[in-house]
Amino acid sequence: MRVEVVAVGTELLLGQIPDTNSQWIGEQLAANGVASHFHQHVGDNHERIVLAFRTALARSDAVIVCGGLGPTQDDITRAALAEVMNVPLERRDDIVEVIRAMFQSRGRSMPDNNLLQADVPRGATIIPQTRGTAPGLICPVGLKVVYAVPGVPYEMTDMFERAILPDLLARERAGGTTSVITSRVLRTWGASESALAEAVSERFDALEDGGRVTIAFLASGIEGIKVRITARGDDAEHASSLLAEEENKVRTLIDLKLGDIIFGVDDQSMEDVVANRLLGKNLTLSVAESLTGGLIASRLVSVAGASRWFRGGVVSYASDVKYDLLGVPEGPVVSAAAARAMAEGVRRVLGADVGLSVTGVAGPEEQDAQPAGTVFVGLAVGDEITDVALRLPGDRPRVRAYSAISALDALRRVLDRTT
Amino acid sequence: MRVEVVAVGTELLLGQIPDTNSQWIGEQLAANGVASHFHQHVGDNHERIVLAFRTALARSDAVIVCGGLGPTQDDITRAALAEVMNVPLERRDDIVEVIRAMFQSRGRSMPDNNLLQADVPRGATIIPQTRGTAPGLICPVGLKVVYAVPGVPYEMTDMFERAILPDLLARERAGGTTSVITSRVLRTWGASESALAEAVSERFDALEDGGRVTIAFLASGIEGIKVRITARGDDAEHASSLLAEEENKVRTLIDLKLGDIIFGVDDQSMEDVVANRLLGKNLTLSVAESLTGGLIASRLVSVAGASRWFRGGVVSYASDVKYDLLGVPEGPVVSAAAARAMAEGVRRVLGADVGLSVTGVAGPEEQDAQPAGTVFVGLAVGDEITDVALRLPGDRPRVRAYSAISALDALRRVLDRTT
Repeated sequence: MRVEVVAVGTELLLGQIPDTNSQWIGEQLAANGVASHFHQHVGDNHERIVLAFRTALARSDAVIVCGGLGPTQDDITRAALAEVMNVPLERRDDIVEVIRAMFQSRGRSMPDNNLLQADVPRGATIIPQTRGTAPGLICPVGLKVVYAVPGVPYEMTDMFERAILPDLLARERAGGTTSVITSRVLRTWGASESALAEAVSERFDALEDGGRVTIAFLASGIEGIKVRITARGDDAEHASSLLAEEENKVRTLIDLKLGDIIFGVDDQSMEDVVANRLLGKNLTLSVAESLTGGLIASRLVSVAGASRWFRGGVVSYASDVKYDLLGVPEGPVVSAAAARAMAEGVRRVLGADVGLSVTGVAGPEEQDAQPAGTVFVGLAVGDEITDVALRLPGDRPRVRAYSAISALDALRRVLDRTT
Repeated sequence: MRVEVVAVGTELLLGQIPDTNSQWIGEQLAANGVASHFHQHVGDNHERIVLAFRTALARSDAVIVCGGLGPTQDDITRAALAEVMNVPLERRDDIVEVIRAMFQSRGRSMPDNNLLQADVPRGATIIPQTRGTAPGLICPVGLKVVYAVPGVPYEMTDMFERAILPDLLARERAGGTTSVITSRVLRTWGASESALAEAVSERFDALEDGGRVTIAFLASGIEGIKVRITARGDDAEHASSLLAEEENKVRTLIDLKLGDIIFGVDDQSMEDVVANRLLGKNLTLSVAESLTGGLIASRLVSVAGASRWFRGGVVSYASDVKYDLLGVPEGPVVSAAAARAMAEGVRRVLGADVGLSVTGVAGPEEQDAQPAGTVFVGLAVGDEITDVALRLPGDRPRVRAYSAISALDALRRVLDRTT
């Protein structure tokens, strides 16, 4: 059973709104073990919608169409479905009455435009509307099926869960497929995608194409590389056990070849992980930032409940703020010594247990005779005052963003070392 | 000239990441008057990628492919392109050397996997890589063309602007289309999309459908609403004059009905505008942040050359940091009085001409008996110590982001008032 999603709406092609519907449906299908090989976007044009539907029906077994069921002249999904099914549209009086009653319950009378929403291709069944005025449609096309739902996420998700997913799963069972898919994302920082691929290449080679377990890499820009392991089992328990076995092998290879670069799993961010470590050790944190200019502090504050462990920070952008407020000795401020002094200084000034600092050159110009991308992280944890020197690639925004996550990662590693 | 976007990556089908690339490209194509009728998503599977490319080439004149150019085993766009072009892949030594040099400049040696990124279908030309290791590809297929770029947005946007858009526009001109399209975006903060639409409704009514001048609204989330005016002229001068005339009318209506809500144009950010005002008045700035936790400072530091006017900031997350370091009188810290004291305090502590502060409740819990979304901005400019009270909607990230841009907007308005 291969399902294709077709999102209808010129606004999607023009980039005026993001297509969150295809993403959400893709996630739901994957979680329920239903394969999805293609998505399409098409504008509000009759010939092109028909072409998109025919393309989808040629290469997939079921099609979920989102959008184009509204009451205006550019809502033409119903007519396109009738053409693909080669049947006429019929106005259904029972649906007219439901829509009329919805308007009445809001103290309004139904505009004539809404009559269009009662048109149904002959042979289709409807998904009753509970949140909006348009019913959904289930349209058989030969042995295949097209489901049509409104593009409003609030209406779409309801119809998907209530009618489409149960129908799809019933079709899968009728076809004899009963597998369950589960996945796990390992979040890494500090290794390139190719280095990760090389580290786990023996697992890649061992897994057969189209087999039960797959590994994929996702470059998440400034948030590191994600390693996604997906397992398909006969039931939930089988899938979990396949997943756990593969995760164990992949973790072992990565630890062995690249060290402690896996900082979290699934949706965990670097700041979530740092927050957990600080809470576990009952420590408070303060940060002193130069080129990152508040990026680290704002990531930390994004964690709900940050007030339990975050004291605050100093953005010491001008050099004399470093000297006067943080007590950094006069001298070059892009240096390991300055980073260490900033970490100690901010811990003292803000009364925290731990001090974390970053100083460096974001670019485009060099500073203190150091090229853009030169960055020093300072760490003050208990009696341990240390630093980490980095050379980061990219333009000004990249260098700043990489500096922020690198500093948090350095703190994670130091916290893991100290008891 | 009809352009189709094909985004490659199983993670898109599984809904693990949103497809921001197709949206961005769609927006750029529309702004430049290039038609786009379809988008597709396809997973990392050779046969299906080939099928998606053939489908796109059958119904569009040019195809932009994003993704699948990485260095790992699941990056197979190059091989699929070679199959569609019916040519072999050839390893290019000159590209190998460029990639090797990129690794060397970061003090690392090139993993063997990256050699894959030097494979080019015979007959294709490359788009040199400047931000990542993979070059882009321009692949002729009969009279049509496929452009392939990495899926990393930072690399994709650069190659699109530098190579794809100029090539597409050259093809359009060669095809006999000689009109010139130009556009201007007015950036606004503080009005809803419907209020803006109402303010300029008489211009909407005056412009004919399919005419030379169009107006569109783009809700840009936390960065306000954009009003895009597009004009199509017989030549550049004609287009510019049509655009200037319409812009003047739209600005007059907005100023009249909604006040000073246009803060900039095109790519100008709120922090760019604030930076220009400070430079023009030769003033230095410091910020004190509570719930925004460094968001404002990091936006300011993102402006190149910020050291000329930005002194630094204090992230006073814990209440006693506000009392001890900034000299805020003991009492409720979510208050107009605390905001004013923070602005004065940070200006004094960091030795700046201007102090800007934010205190408030990001949520989810209330604080000082104030509900989430209660925010006070404090401003200290010369002898003028003022505050602005806000009630902001949304969850924790929204409230924090809205607070940051609202504070910068308040500073912009105060700077415009003071001489």
